[in-house]
Parts: sequence; C-alpha cells; structure tokens
Amino acid sequence: MPQISQKGRMMPESPIRKLVPYADQAKKRGIKVYHLNIGQPDIPTPQSMIDAMHQLDVGVIEYSHSAGILSYREQMCGYYADHGIKLTPDQIIVGAGASEAILFAFQTCLNPGDEIIVPEPFYANYNGFAISAGVNIRPITSYIESGFALPPIEEFEKVISPATRAIMICNPNNPTGYLYSKDELELLRSIVLKYNLFLFADEVYREFCYDGSSHFSVMNLEGLDRNVVLFVSVSKRYSACGLRVGALISRNEEVIATALKFAQARLSPPSLGQIAAQAAANTPPSYFTDVIQEYVMRRDVVVQALNQMEGVVCPNPRGAFYVTAKLPIDDCDTFCQWLLDSFSHENQTVMLAPASGFYSTPGAGKNEVRISYVLKVDDLKNAMACIEQAIREYPGRVV
Amino acid sequence: MPQISQKGRMMPESPIRKLVPYADQAKKRGIKVYHLNIGQPDIPTPQSMIDAMHQLDVGVIEYSHSAGILSYREQMCGYYADHGIKLTPDQIIVGAGASEAILFAFQTCLNPGDEIIVPEPFYANYNGFAISAGVNIRPITSYIESGFALPPIEEFEKVISPATRAIMICNPNNPTGYLYSKDELELLRSIVLKYNLFLFADEVYREFCYDGSSHFSVMNLEGLDRNVVLFVSVSKRYSACGLRVGALISRNEEVIATALKFAQARLSPPSLGQIAAQAAANTPPSYFTDVIQEYVMRRDVVVQALNQMEGVVCPNPRGAFYVTAKLPIDDCDTFCQWLLDSFSHENQTVMLAPASGFYSTPGAGKNEVRISYVLKVDDLKNAMACIEQAIREYPGRVV
Repeated sequence: MPQISQKGRMMPESPIRKLVPYADQAKKRGIKVYHLNIGQPDIPTPQSMIDAMHQLDVGVIEYSHSAGILSYREQMCGYYADHGIKLTPDQIIVGAGASEAILFAFQTCLNPGDEIIVPEPFYANYNGFAISAGVNIRPITSYIESGFALPPIEEFEKVISPATRAIMICNPNNPTGYLYSKDELELLRSIVLKYNLFLFADEVYREFCYDGSSHFSVMNLEGLDRNVVLFVSVSKRYSACGLRVGALISRNEEVIATALKFAQARLSPPSLGQIAAQAAANTPPSYFTDVIQEYVMRRDVVVQALNQMEGVVCPNPRGAFYVTAKLPIDDCDTFCQWLLDSFSHENQTVMLAPASGFYSTPGAGKNEVRISYVLKVDDLKNAMACIEQAIREYPGRVV
Repeated sequence: MPQISQKGRMMPESPIRKLVPYADQAKKRGIKVYHLNIGQPDIPTPQSMIDAMHQLDVGVIEYSHSAGILSYREQMCGYYADHGIKLTPDQIIVGAGASEAILFAFQTCLNPGDEIIVPEPFYANYNGFAISAGVNIRPITSYIESGFALPPIEEFEKVISPATRAIMICNPNNPTGYLYSKDELELLRSIVLKYNLFLFADEVYREFCYDGSSHFSVMNLEGLDRNVVLFVSVSKRYSACGLRVGALISRNEEVIATALKFAQARLSPPSLGQIAAQAAANTPPSYFTDVIQEYVMRRDVVVQALNQMEGVVCPNPRGAFYVTAKLPIDDCDTFCQWLLDSFSHENQTVMLAPASGFYSTPGAGKNEVRISYVLKVDDLKNAMACIEQAIREYPGRVV
C-alpha cells in the first residue's frame, strides 16, 4: 500500500476540530453549546451582496482573469484609496480567500527550509501553509501581561539567521485582538530593511478597530514597497466567509509576476464570490458603524465578565473579534474538552479554543483560551456565566 | 531587495498566455480572432444553477465544512452511483476546482523530489502543481500516429525508479481528446499494483464521450482502493468553470484524512459555487444529450477539415473537446504567434495553443497544435478556412 507523504504526516490537526466530536456529544445529551470557538461571525452578509446573486445576469459562469475580475480589482483600488493607500489593479491578485493568497506568498518568496518569524500566539493555519510550502515558522512569544503587544525588537534579532526571509504579522490580531500601533510597525520597518526581509501582513480584520482607534496598514510604511506583501479578505469585512474571496497585494512587481504564475496554474478565483464582493461597494457606511458598535458591546460584555472572575486575566483588545484570556486552569486542552464532556451549567456549556494551538513554543499558552465574541450579547452573558461556574468546578483548577 | 524563491523562478509561464498580447494587438488592428486556444466552453450553464443563485436564501454566506457541504457530497454520491461507482460522502473532499484537489493530492501523497509518471502531451498546469509540491513529472511520450493511445507498459517500466510514487492520467484527455479503453486502464492497474504506486486520474471530461463510447473510470478498477485518487469538477461538466468546484475522491482513508488536513488549513471551498453545483442535480438529461450532440458536430467539422488540408494529420478523438493535430510547420510557437501578428484571411485569424507547452520532453510536439472546439460550427468553419490558408502562406512551412 502506497504511503502518504512526510508533509501530510506533519500537517497539524486543528486544536478546535479535535473538540468537535465532544461538542456533538454534548448536544446529543440535550446541552446547549455556545460556540465561542469560531471565527464565523453571525452578522448578516450585506444585502447588496445577496442582491448581486439574486440579479445574476450571466449565461455562462466563466473563469475570471487569474488575478481576478479587472473591474473588481479596480473597485478594490478605490476602497484602498479611500483609506489612504494608493494601489493599481496589477498590484492585486485575488485569491480563494486570504488563505490562498498566503500560500501563494510563501511559495513565491521562500525556499523550502527558509524561515518566517511570527509573533505568537498566531493564527494556527499559518502552520499548515508553512508545511505546504516546506518553510519553517520561528515564533517569538508575546505576552498577556503586555496585552500581547509586539515583542521587543531584540527578540526578533535573536532569532534572525541566514535562513530568515520574512516577518509575518496579523493586525488586528487573531487570536489576541491586539491592534499594532504605528510605532510598533515602524520598529518592524527598521528591522525588515536592516535584514532585507519580506514583511507579510494579514490585515483581514482591518475594519474592526475600536475605541476611536484607526488601522495603520503596512502599506503606509515608507520605503517598503519591495518588502511588503499584504493579505486581505472580504470574509470578515462583510461577514461572507463562504465566498472565498481574498487577495495578495504588493507593490513589488517581481512578487506579483511570480505569484501570478501560481495563480495561473489554478486558472481563476471563484467568479460568483467576486461578483458578490464587487457588489459590496454598494454597502451603506451605516453597515460598518452598526457592526462595530455591536462588536464593541460584545467585547465589553466578555472582557468585563472575564476580569470579574477570580484568577482570570483578560486584556481589553482594540481590534478583531477575539480575546485571549488567562484562566486559573492546569491545561487548556483538558479544560476545553472537560467543558464539553463533563460540565454543564443550567443545561448549557461553552466551546472555547485552547490557546495552546496558537503557540509554537511547546508548553506556551497552556492556561489560556481564545474566545470569539461572534454571538449576540444575551448569549455571551449566558456563556460567561458558564465559564465562571466552570472554573469553580473544574478539577484541574489552579489556585 | 528580498529575492523571490527558486520555485517561483521555476514556475512556467503558460504557453497560451504568452500569445495573449499578440491576440490583443490583432484585435486592435480590426482582425477577428477565433479563440481555439482555450478550455472555456461557450455552452450555457444549466438554468438550474443560475436559478439557485436567483433564489439564494441565506442571511450569512458562511464557511462550509472543509470537505464541502455534506448534502452536496451526498448528492455527488448519488451521481456516481448512477454511473456504477459506489462512494460515501467521507470519500470526497470538495476543492476550489480540480486544481486545488490535484495540489492536495500531490502534497498528501508525494515527498519533495518524488516522481509522477505522466503520458505526454499532458495538461500543462500539472507542471505548476508539481513545482508547488516540489515533485517531479517524468513524461512518457504518446504519439499522434496511434491517436495518442496509452504508451506501451514497457515504456512506463523503463522510467520507474525508487523515486516513482504515482502515475497520472487525464481521461478523456486534455490536450488530445483520447479516451482510454478499459484494456488500457487494466494495464495501468497491473503496473500500479506491481510497483505499489498511486494512480491519479483526472476525469473532469468524463461526460464528454462520443460515438457511442462510454467512460470507464479508474474507480471501477478492481483492488485499487488504496491506490486510486480521482479528480473531478463541475467546470466542464456544466460549463461553469468560474464556480471553482471540483473534488478529490479516494477510498484510501489515510489519503482522505491527510488531504482533509490540507483542506482544513484553507477552511472551506467556495460556498456559492457548491450551492449552484448542488442545484445542477435538477438539470434535465436532455442537457447532456444536446451538449454531446453539439460537440460531436463541432469535432466532425474540425477533424474533417483538418484532414483535408495538405500535410495535416489529425486523429479523431472520442472524448473531451480538444484535438491535437500535426501541421506542416517548423515550430508551433513561431506559427501560433505568426497567426496573430502577421497573418489574416478575410480579416480573420485564429488563436491556437502550441502543443510544445503540453510536452516535457524538449523538442517534442514542435509541429503540433491543440485546437479546442468550443465555438459554434459556423465559427469553426471560418477558423478552419483560416488555418488552411495560413499553412499555405506560413514562411516556415515544411513540405
């Protein structure tokens, strides 16, 4: 019998997916499970996008250009111009989600064995893309005590080696919600220039900045046109994760020309998704005002409730829709499974993401969980009551 | 300035895309260009699929299961059951087109440096997926004299080495239209078992079999459940290339479990495309009868016209919508460019795909072109008149 590959054996199983059977079991026992483990918002997709499908006027659903429908890329340029970022359509390659864009960038910019430095905790699927491309992620730990701010630049320099080819950030951050400041990004700029590295930036949550803060994009860093590769997506922006429409953006012509060859090999990004995404230009500004107001309310409910629980530490992040909190527990994997297979409070429980899965350093994040505030406020209140009771009852409680 | 990767530099540019600027120039000069270079059919997408979008009834366009919407996979099982192939939904992983499915399979089954044997000429994008996965394609030449039949099994054995991990076929074939017989597939079966190899089969054109012939799938080969990985797509089946919905299918549980981890890293295949694809179950059987009748008419026009031209050899293939023909020319790349930049006949010309791009062996296919019969019969007749005149006038004509 033919064997599967080394890469295949190295691919991690998602720490969240391991819990799915336990959640299913809990539901079978009649327990209501609040899903705080996912990045799938419950916010309605803008009506303009649904309308675009209702009014779909094509005889043949054709391939688009491999880099994406030109008029859609032009519209994206308009969007970014409104946000102070000047782009041309040929600096954009539309991908099947930011996921595909990230894989294109890894393959375009890194040789097998090369390294990318990523502050941890980080979005776990970066590991999968790294394995696909045969490259290695070198983590630098950020800490809950500083709200998961950018680690000191010396920490980056400690791990930079001849194999280092890129630094990657997610801003606002998944899983911490941390919003990097302009000053932090300027520090990254200096080190990227000093060591001649690519700077990969996942800005899929850029719409979600709170408390009057605004997003500063890596595209606005001076003199980094050769270094910056940006990943964007409509998944979170318009609560339309299933479209699979994202993009790789760079002002480095060689990166674009090469990534385009990978894009041409797979022919085209999804056409229907692009048509819907383009229609989102007709989304009224009030959509975002409402969505952001809703997320701030949710975040406040979660952060306040968590910090009132004994032994719990939760920063108050200013972006995305996640928090990573420290709980008085021995092991987050055990705890998250226990929540589903051994616990209930008023016949309800919660599904959380163990933070261990977002760290590469062995043992890091063992007492942390990621909570996505993608449910309505009342549900979040019930979910917080569950967590509060759970950390009282949990046998592995650490005092 | 950071350098791009070795893989990036190895990625081939599509032989067809190189011609696009010349076609654009010809159009600017007012010349009508018949596009026989592409695999984008002009056949209307079934109304059931368009209707599914017109009636889209979702509030949030959500991620689907990473392996695809369960009800869609169940429906696919029904489709294959109707064609004598027994499958379960967990043997199917929906991908963003067969393209993604092929990349998943290469990454799942092969280590960097491993080899896949592929009869040439073959679909050029296999090269791109091979480079992405870091694996090597070993071509075995099939010849126009035998209508591009499967090369003798001894030819396979000559190139099998410890690095060989898989044999890959496309059936019916792109770019030749050749339909492999059950006997040919049985020969492949024996060699796959003898050397413990994977058998990858791209059957995206399985609907398109002519002259009363029927498709024999690798899924029907006895005792190969561990070896066979099948790639399918709705792109050609329903003339819906832009959906980006295909699948990887295997009865090898380890292959599926591993490919699923790659699928989970990118979260989900396109949801709208899957909804449309599922609706295709309501396509009346007459759709295919009509489409096949149309393609047979087109093929007959093309094959007959070509074989009446002096010095031209064109087999009469029984599948897909391509022919690869031998022309009395010195170099197909030069010829195809000349057609666009130096030739016209009654103010018309044709864009063809140089067959050199479908061969890996240097110099092979130099006097061959691929012709896609994806235009209406009247257009095809005009296009054939152009080719006839062109090979009379072409300065590099070989007598």
